[in-house]
Amino acid sequence: MRDLYYDQLDAIVADLVTMTKTVRAAVERATSALLQADAEAAESVIAGDRDIDQARESVEERSMELLATQQPVAGDLRMLVAALRMVADLERMGDLAVHIAKIARMRMPDQAVPAALRPTIANMAETAERMVDETVRIVAGRDVDAARALEAEDEEMDRLRRSMFRILLDDDWEYGVEPAIDLALLGRYYERIADHAVSMARRVVYLVTGHHPAHEEMLAEPVLSDPGS
Amino acid sequence: MRDLYYDQLDAIVADLVTMTKTVRAAVERATSALLQADAEAAESVIAGDRDIDQARESVEERSMELLATQQPVAGDLRMLVAALRMVADLERMGDLAVHIAKIARMRMPDQAVPAALRPTIANMAETAERMVDETVRIVAGRDVDAARALEAEDEEMDRLRRSMFRILLDDDWEYGVEPAIDLALLGRYYERIADHAVSMARRVVYLVTGHHPAHEEMLAEPVLSDPGS
Repeated sequence: MRDLYYDQLDAIVADLVTMTKTVRAAVERATSALLQADAEAAESVIAGDRDIDQARESVEERSMELLATQQPVAGDLRMLVAALRMVADLERMGDLAVHIAKIARMRMPDQAVPAALRPTIANMAETAERMVDETVRIVAGRDVDAARALEAEDEEMDRLRRSMFRILLDDDWEYGVEPAIDLALLGRYYERIADHAVSMARRVVYLVTGHHPAHEEMLAEPVLSDPGS
Repeated sequence: MRDLYYDQLDAIVADLVTMTKTVRAAVERATSALLQADAEAAESVIAGDRDIDQARESVEERSMELLATQQPVAGDLRMLVAALRMVADLERMGDLAVHIAKIARMRMPDQAVPAALRPTIANMAETAERMVDETVRIVAGRDVDAARALEAEDEEMDRLRRSMFRILLDDDWEYGVEPAIDLALLGRYYERIADHAVSMARRVVYLVTGHHPAHEEMLAEPVLSDPGS
């Protein structure tokens, strides 16, 4: 009975790792949709979100079942509660990839991202993808040091978002209102994907140590639409 | 012992209700900051967010403590898991009110919202505030019917967001890129507050019935930056 219980706990962690990889692939495909006006990539992200939602439901049901029947304490209890929260993060990350794919699709056959901002968006996407990649390793290995290091990477995302707003608000901006709105939202979506990766990393710290990361390590405020803010 | 346990469960529900009222007040003050360029209101929302964060920590700690020591099953287990999730929704709603207040503050003494969009933003704010108000009643009364009805109100928010994009993208838009970006983000923040209200309502349905609302009742997709989407 207890062996089955530990198998079930391990299977939940394995599913979280698989889901994180699926989200990583979705973010990458959404970025291809965006930067290569790739309609097939956009459709695959949008259709594929159902798999992430179903995996979330499965992990939730099994975690609740173990909470109800095994009455876990200490580390196992924290693991199951962390799992319930991490699947919520993963579902949101999948939704955000869908939002990116839908902006790409809406502007096709045109490019949603004007040339001036393609390097910035490519950097934001790479940063988000790298952070989700690291989250795979953090969750799989319960790596507290890597989890703490992830917060620093989030600063790179803030820097990129400020740089984007400088371009959008420059007097030389020649593309008008519609792409500026698309880009402000795209920047927000990539930033939120990174925030959720940090949030997952923080849950790993909690499940391993039993303590939430210190308050001063909390998520950075998002950058608003003023580069000077 | 069991009496104390039920008192503790009741205290958690009472704190969720109080937090929801606090968030409701924060959204209202953030809207005053925005539509009346009220600096004091903006500062009070920004400073007050710490109270919401502290209340979240308190509810989380006590819920984990009860999960660990009382090994609740069935309805009580669902209640505690729902509480852990609802405080996460409430914390995000508080953060979103802060984002709104910060956009208002950044543009002061000017108005962030041009005249053409003040009625739309006022309507979005009223819709969000009304939905959070209803969430207070839904959580306090475990009102499944009201929870199910809340999803319909979310459609009003989508309608308002589409109407906003029509104005922003009209050829007559005369305010330039910066207010357009502010408004796209403000619309997103109010919409997300409404989404979290719906999410809390759905958690009440789950805690009362033991079932998640059907898939087709899931949160509506956000409206992207094309009024025709």
